[in-house]
Amino acid sequence: MTIVLTHKLSGLREVDAPHSLVAHFGPDHALQMDSGGRLNQWTIAYQTYGELNAAKSNAILVCHALTGDQHVANAHPVTGKPGWWSTMVGPGRPIDTDRYFVICSNVIGGCMGTTGPASLNPQTGRPYGLELPIVTIRDMVRAQAMLIDHLGVDTLFCVVGGSMGGMQVLQWVASFPERVFSAMPIATAAKHSSQNIAFHEVGRQAVMADPDWRKGRYLEEGVIPTKGLAVARMAAHITYLSDEALQSKFGRKLQDRDAPTFSFDAEFQIENYLRYQGSSFVDRFDPNSYLYVTRACDYFDLAADYDGSLARAFQGVKARFCVVSFNSDWLYPTAASRAIVHALNAGGASVSFVDIETDRGHDAFLLDLPEFIATSQGFLDSAAKARGLPPAAP
Amino acid sequence: MTIVLTHKLSGLREVDAPHSLVAHFGPDHALQMDSGGRLNQWTIAYQTYGELNAAKSNAILVCHALTGDQHVANAHPVTGKPGWWSTMVGPGRPIDTDRYFVICSNVIGGCMGTTGPASLNPQTGRPYGLELPIVTIRDMVRAQAMLIDHLGVDTLFCVVGGSMGGMQVLQWVASFPERVFSAMPIATAAKHSSQNIAFHEVGRQAVMADPDWRKGRYLEEGVIPTKGLAVARMAAHITYLSDEALQSKFGRKLQDRDAPTFSFDAEFQIENYLRYQGSSFVDRFDPNSYLYVTRACDYFDLAADYDGSLARAFQGVKARFCVVSFNSDWLYPTAASRAIVHALNAGGASVSFVDIETDRGHDAFLLDLPEFIATSQGFLDSAAKARGLPPAAP
Repeated sequence: MTIVLTHKLSGLREVDAPHSLVAHFGPDHALQMDSGGRLNQWTIAYQTYGELNAAKSNAILVCHALTGDQHVANAHPVTGKPGWWSTMVGPGRPIDTDRYFVICSNVIGGCMGTTGPASLNPQTGRPYGLELPIVTIRDMVRAQAMLIDHLGVDTLFCVVGGSMGGMQVLQWVASFPERVFSAMPIATAAKHSSQNIAFHEVGRQAVMADPDWRKGRYLEEGVIPTKGLAVARMAAHITYLSDEALQSKFGRKLQDRDAPTFSFDAEFQIENYLRYQGSSFVDRFDPNSYLYVTRACDYFDLAADYDGSLARAFQGVKARFCVVSFNSDWLYPTAASRAIVHALNAGGASVSFVDIETDRGHDAFLLDLPEFIATSQGFLDSAAKARGLPPAAP
Repeated sequence: MTIVLTHKLSGLREVDAPHSLVAHFGPDHALQMDSGGRLNQWTIAYQTYGELNAAKSNAILVCHALTGDQHVANAHPVTGKPGWWSTMVGPGRPIDTDRYFVICSNVIGGCMGTTGPASLNPQTGRPYGLELPIVTIRDMVRAQAMLIDHLGVDTLFCVVGGSMGGMQVLQWVASFPERVFSAMPIATAAKHSSQNIAFHEVGRQAVMADPDWRKGRYLEEGVIPTKGLAVARMAAHITYLSDEALQSKFGRKLQDRDAPTFSFDAEFQIENYLRYQGSSFVDRFDPNSYLYVTRACDYFDLAADYDGSLARAFQGVKARFCVVSFNSDWLYPTAASRAIVHALNAGGASVSFVDIETDRGHDAFLLDLPEFIATSQGFLDSAAKARGLPPAAP
């Protein structure tokens, strides 16, 4: 039996018919997962920008964050908004699509065309829901590596990403040290802290507390736990911004009024902003995917796979690194980046470390901050020279 | 018509028949509220400990935090747990019940016997729900002042409280400068920040997203939005603890297992802990009360009532102050206490300020921290001497 689903949310149409290139893998390229699970049939949706050179030496893999996707530098097919990293990726940008062949794929567990919990389980003909094995950061990277093979790229010129994307960068150099020439882990950590897990757990409980979640089978029952997902997003969003950023952007300003109304309405601008973040998110993201990607981060502890030694995880790493943190990021604070740098130094890697001063918090990596853009540009230019790539056209 | 409610939650029985002393006020002592609302009939439930001396000069008012109550130093009638501040209040403790007459009342908007949204609205015979006017910190203090009048106390020897309790302390000295001899605002702020409002808004949205909330009329419909309230509590609880405290207490330790199970169970100890905090909270707290007390904090901005000048709020204040903060408290950080101290200094008040070094975060004020206990003891002893109270019995 095959269930025909009418995905209520526009975003979920991308599960079946993504506005992207899609690579399909069958049993001869099964995805063996950390949990012991195995996907005999799976797909990965991706975007590319620019041209792969003859030497195949100019490919950059961009890894997206928790609720990001492959639409890094093109208009988003669901929201119509510009690509999520248009400040960094494009002609003349640090990740210059006139010079580099840029690849960005949706992670395993996602909902933009790569196999995730909203995808049909070929064994049952219904959506996976929670039947999809738990996904880890390493599973995401395994899938990306198979995509890179499929694209005929042996060594990536650079792997770059922020937040959960940065975790993938770290996993790439640990899992495939020979395949990475340079790496930029940004605003990230080598393991999820107790507080990180705590916030993610609140989000998952908010989704699961919604009676429309239906133990994960909502798609077949024609409902969507949008209220729970919106609450999850609101809580998470606070962690993406610094206290100072909230204070300078919103402070205690009232929403469209001069005096308080003494009610439970969105009286303060910050409330209105958060409610908007929650309600707009549910139009583009699958609630079960949210469970999977948050869980993947929680399981991330790179050192744990190497007898608890992060330095050992990076042993033999040849890539040159640029580690970037933001001093007001309290989700993955500077100290977490410093720990990565220490471990890389212990392994003898070439590392530059930039802690950028900004009050914007974790989300700073998505913003057009001159110091961040210049740092990225400088690192990539220098790595390109070392890689023997021709300089940018004048 | 009078609706007879069978409160499902044991905690809500306290609304109708609190295990406390209760003062009832009628139209001649109506409570005029900041929102413009007015309670012609209202009650305030309270506990006292120790004896009021003949000069009536030894009364200490303890103000409770967000979800606290009047049971500061006796076993809680719902949970059976020790009083929430047994470390600070009792014989031989800093707030020595052998020396002082200690009063602690449940706030307006609460659910332990003081008029709140679960109380019957005398005009309709059904629970107020959201018909209760929005409550402010100043409303809480107005009600306390009327209780103090009722108890025959003119001047309080000390007003003390942490977190939302500290806001009440600040409001007391601003509203009734002649009636406060000494004051201890602890782990608090003179206004709610944008981030503070944001976290509270997430909690309220979690409650309101629960279909059992029924627009606040759940008591009449025989349901309780426990799932939403539990999520709200989980999110809030993270803000009460520091990143370091979570890391040292839980880290990434697994719950009752040696290896990960790769599931959405409470795999990590921190998840289990948070789930417990959520599920135990709903047994003792009314979801609508949670909306009211969080909202009261959000509206708190003491300077706003004094042309934006906190120093002006404290003009003419005669009380001696001990302001206490905890260096790992990120909910009401040290800087917020420092702002209070600066404003008090500008007003010429006598202030000692202690920033206590601990990794325990905001909840440190509820713990038996030697430096905190000693600071409180020293301040109160010195104030007692100035007040002409006899020294503690040897």
